Amino acid sequence: MPRVAVTRRITFNAAHRLHNPNKSDEWNRETFGKCNSPNWHGHNYQLFITLEGEPDPETGFVYDLAKLKQIVEDNVVSQVDHKNLNLDVPFLEGTLTSTENLAIGIWNQIKPHIQGADLVSVRIVETENNIVEYRG
Amino acid sequence: MPRVAVTRRITFNAAHRLHNPNKSDEWNRETFGKCNSPNWHGHNYQLFITLEGEPDPETGFVYDLAKLKQIVEDNVVSQVDHKNLNLDVPFLEGTLTSTENLAIGIWNQIKPHIQGADLVSVRIVETENNIVEYRG
Amino acid sequence: MPRVAVTRRITFNAAHRLHNPNKSDEWNRETFGKCNSPNWHGHNYQLFITLEGEPDPETGFVYDLAKLKQIVEDNVVSQVDHKNLNLDVPFLEGTLTSTENLAIGIWNQIKPHIQGADLVSVRIVETENNIVEYRG
Amino acid sequence: MPRVAVTRRITFNAAHRLHNPNKSDEWNRETFGKCNSPNWHGHNYQLFITLEGEPDPETGFVYDLAKLKQIVEDNVVSQVDHKNLNLDVPFLEGTLTSTENLAIGIWNQIKPHIQGADLVSVRIVETENNIVEYRG
Amino acid sequence: MPRVAVTRRITFNAAHRLHNPNKSDEWNRETFGKCNSPNWHGHNYQLFITLEGEPDPETGFVYDLAKLKQIVEDNVVSQVDHKNLNLDVPFLEGTLTSTENLAIGIWNQIKPHIQGADLVSVRIVETENNIVEYRG
Amino acid sequence: MPRVAVTRRITFNAAHRLHNPNKSDEWNRETFGKCNSPNWHGHNYQLFITLEGEPDPETGFVYDLAKLKQIVEDNVVSQVDHKNLNLDVPFLEGTLTSTENLAIGIWNQIKPHIQGADLVSVRIVETENNIVEYRG
Repeated sequence: MPRVAVTRRITFNAAHRLHNPNKSDEWNRETFGKCNSPNWHGHNYQLFITLEGEPDPETGFVYDLAKLKQIVEDNVVSQVDHKNLNLDVPFLEGTLTSTENLAIGIWNQIKPHIQGADLVSVRIVETENNIVEYRG
Repeated sequence: MPRVAVTRRITFNAAHRLHNPNKSDEWNRETFGKCNSPNWHGHNYQLFITLEGEPDPETGFVYDLAKLKQIVEDNVVSQVDHKNLNLDVPFLEGTLTSTENLAIGIWNQIKPHIQGADLVSVRIVETENNIVEYRG
Repeated sequence: MPRVAVTRRITFNAAHRLHNPNKSDEWNRETFGKCNSPNWHGHNYQLFITLEGEPDPETGFVYDLAKLKQIVEDNVVSQVDHKNLNLDVPFLEGTLTSTENLAIGIWNQIKPHIQGADLVSVRIVETENNIVEYRG
Repeated sequence: MPRVAVTRRITFNAAHRLHNPNKSDEWNRETFGKCNSPNWHGHNYQLFITLEGEPDPETGFVYDLAKLKQIVEDNVVSQVDHKNLNLDVPFLEGTLTSTENLAIGIWNQIKPHIQGADLVSVRIVETENNIVEYRG
Repeated sequence: MPRVAVTRRITFNAAHRLHNPNKSDEWNRETFGKCNSPNWHGHNYQLFITLEGEPDPETGFVYDLAKLKQIVEDNVVSQVDHKNLNLDVPFLEGTLTSTENLAIGIWNQIKPHIQGADLVSVRIVETENNIVEYRG
Repeated sequence: MPRVAVTRRITFNAAHRLHNPNKSDEWNRETFGKCNSPNWHGHNYQLFITLEGEPDPETGFVYDLAKLKQIVEDNVVSQVDHKNLNLDVPFLEGTLTSTENLAIGIWNQIKPHIQGADLVSVRIVETENNIVEYRG
């Protein structure tokens, strides 16, 4: 049976700052540059979630993308949209808010809710120049 | 010898409707929501066809993309562009016109015509939020 | 006082067909080409609504874009999204569904609901190659 | 002599929050919704600066866009990029950080530095759905 | 009667170089920087042609965009696509190939062929950061 | 430990021409069509470099993208931006300047400079319709 990958894009806007509290301010400034700026900055994040599986003969769907959207809204967007990734997000607590760690955190938030298809990719476009992908 | 992947984008506009004729109208409305709307809706489809192979030393090409474009025009675009995917397309007859099934159908239309390189991906961007990929 | 223009983008998907019922089939085929295809085709329409006015000192807003979005949802999107522009849309009844006429129709649907700022533009991106703008 | 408009795009990332300190918290929450979220959120801002004038016969340029870029870097980007629009930006002090006010502020920062051509537009794409333009 | 603006996008790829032959090499290098690089560079140009007029009651069209495309193909694209703007293009002979002058040249190529609607804008996106518009 | 892929986009503009000097002019015209045009043409190339590795616990980074950008600037962009790929680029000497060969050449320029993460993809978007990817 053919396997097909389906991707849903979901956007959110958030503030964050790259800062390792176990290191000196100087180390942080040298390591993270302007991304360490104390009063935060932010991004329009584009999130692409990809599932893979066999299309259901009755629907033609690998997975109901409206249902996927709801899972992402409930478990990710509700926590991160118009929020501060460093201060407001339980699933990122104690984590450096790099896009890499954000992708891993989002994967872990979504993974338990997906049945009947395989989560294969969480991709985040942070800016038009910076993209991160986590495939589990 | 190095293997390289080359992708050609081709666009088409079509109408369709998600509807399983073996199910009740109520089941169809509940399952497909507004995509089941009786008088059709439509999309600007973006199709990305990817072939993989070794660049020919004489041309530097994995595959002549003008030739690939012609194959896709002759075997796909001529059947789907400005058409109704449910009513007008021989290679989708009897198929639910989900983007998943469309990708599989397009793969099957193109595959027999590609020699000297491997068809590795048919990707369809149905809307900016919904993307499907079939890798055979 | 400074005047500023604010624009909200809203997307919808619809089917349509260019066909003048007062003319022969041959005239329609010659005039509209593949856009006259009998079983409809469709597009991902992007709609850009622009209002102009002075920012309110208490909010910094020319107009509450969430309210504008609601007006457009109630008076336009609810009638056209996942619908057939020729068959399903009261405000286009008896109209050739060219993008020009669609823009004029949308303007007329929105105009009576905007107070406190001026509607100055309805712009529709029908495909990446075709754009229409109506400024009243 | 022909007049031509030239536009330079410049991007920056910033945090902000919509909040009127002269109003109650409840008023702010009701008026600004999630944009009032206390710990900030942020955007990838795209800024489009347009100048108009006659092309110089010796260069073919209305204005040297590298020089325009430098003016914008020195007077805008250096103050807003990877910064908090509410806390860090002298030219926005005491201003509600709506995109409307941001456009007016940027116009005022750039205007005095442009000679030999006319500043005619400051346009900001805050998100793919929200766009603001100030034409002075 | 309502007036509506319709825009057609057309793309082409070309090489060029900014160089004023009446000036010294040093002046050219200082004025144009890397755009003066002797062996040419190039761009994917996006051209947006806008016409304005009243929609024809029989077609709903301000202007047949297929006809507009043909006019642009015959009078512009055939001369510039996959060509060198400095060496190959009769309508740019003796002209500095700035995007400003390119827009004026394209306007003059198209203008005589448009009847029944008004040519109101030639806009060129040279790169994602540089845009030029000529309105006659 | 989780492995994550990080991608940096970098743009450059260049001229080139497809021409095999070991073949007749006629063969070149027939094989490469307008891409063989004698006085060059050009593109806005978008380059996407992807590295894969484990995020560093102290930074959250798979690789410092500012450092990656510098490596690409020093070893690729400095040689190709605003240059002629056929005439000016040491690492392409004696090579047909197809996008396939450009991707392989760029991989070889970058590869020796990447430590602590794996170079996994060099992807080039030559035009919106033509994309090439080399994965080593």
